[in-house]
Amino acid sequence: MKSHTRYLTFQTPERFGLLNITDTVHDAVRESGVQEGLCLVNAMHITASVFINDDEPGLHADYRKWLETLAPFDPSPQRYAHNRTGEDNADAHMKRQIMGREVVVAITRGKLDFGPWEQIFYGEFDGKRPKRVLVKIIGE
Amino acid sequence: MKSHTRYLTFQTPERFGLLNITDTVHDAVRESGVQEGLCLVNAMHITASVFINDDEPGLHADYRKWLETLAPFDPSPQRYAHNRTGEDNADAHMKRQIMGREVVVAITRGKLDFGPWEQIFYGEFDGKRPKRVLVKIIGE
Amino acid sequence: MKSHTRYLTFQTPERFGLLNITDTVHDAVRESGVQEGLCLVNAMHITASVFINDDEPGLHADYRKWLETLAPFDPSPQRYAHNRTGEDNADAHMKRQIMGREVVVAITRGKLDFGPWEQIFYGEFDGKRPKRVLVKIIGE
Repeated sequence: MKSHTRYLTFQTPERFGLLNITDTVHDAVRESGVQEGLCLVNAMHITASVFINDDEPGLHADYRKWLETLAPFDPSPQRYAHNRTGEDNADAHMKRQIMGREVVVAITRGKLDFGPWEQIFYGEFDGKRPKRVLVKIIGE
Repeated sequence: MKSHTRYLTFQTPERFGLLNITDTVHDAVRESGVQEGLCLVNAMHITASVFINDDEPGLHADYRKWLETLAPFDPSPQRYAHNRTGEDNADAHMKRQIMGREVVVAITRGKLDFGPWEQIFYGEFDGKRPKRVLVKIIGE
Repeated sequence: MKSHTRYLTFQTPERFGLLNITDTVHDAVRESGVQEGLCLVNAMHITASVFINDDEPGLHADYRKWLETLAPFDPSPQRYAHNRTGEDNADAHMKRQIMGREVVVAITRGKLDFGPWEQIFYGEFDGKRPKRVLVKIIGE
């Protein structure tokens, strides 16, 4: 069994940001030499996500608006008890649960085994600082 | 290490549909010959889900109603910017994030290692056309 | 390839409860002897979750309140068709979809490869009875 580990770092200029990281994950798969296996990609921070969806700017604007409706940003400790700790990012911990922490992608014949529109995104809900993503590949 | 890959295709008669695919995934595990390992099952399309829950028609009706509340179908581009592209399925991209893209299931002694009520479902939120699901098994 | 399987049982005194199970999963990784691999941790019941987030009591109170807003407890069969079966836990099946069934965590140099704040939680939405969690580790 082969394994390969890679750490990526991202910093978004705003609190909210969605970055297409598919090519970088493809590179890690190529480096691994794995032909058949699994590729885990996860946010290492708890106010961020890794998810798979479409690379369409309108959809990304929709996600932003929709997540804001489900878990509005509110730095006050009245709405979110977490913000009594001095944090202002309780909403980001909620948004991350909707969008998910990780994806597991099959590797077949040395490539990410994707449907026609699948793209891997890093989803940032409390940005403006460097945060890490882990890529772990196992297989043969 | 053994690996096994299988592609399934589903077409639901309506936009929304939940299909129990547990037996088909069981078949793939049997074919693989894997006794101890992991089984990834994921939607290859970005307006569909694979998830694990109960096979109870009332619950499925509840999911349908609940998802419609959280992310209502609305083909107009006023509510969803994604629908400016000519698509009408922005809501389906949201519903899929709630229900999730994939499940990873343990294989123990040659079988999906399930709790008493766990069943694997394909969740379709923009149906009426053929869409694919990937089953990837690795182990020994 | 090595594999290791462990079943954990939890019973929360109330319907809702979040338990930090990180140390127990760490123990299972140590037992497995796996240095490089993947660790799956999943709820075996369909009204419970395994998820990764912060161990902060304010945040946990926020999750409880937030999930109640998105999918309110209501034993009546008027709101949830599932409750016509004699169950009263349809809301718990919804909450579990938001929080997720499982996490997959990388194992690197014999340890769970975590970011600074990542902790694994068992999320119970219909407690007061024993329920199981599966830990499955594969690697080398």
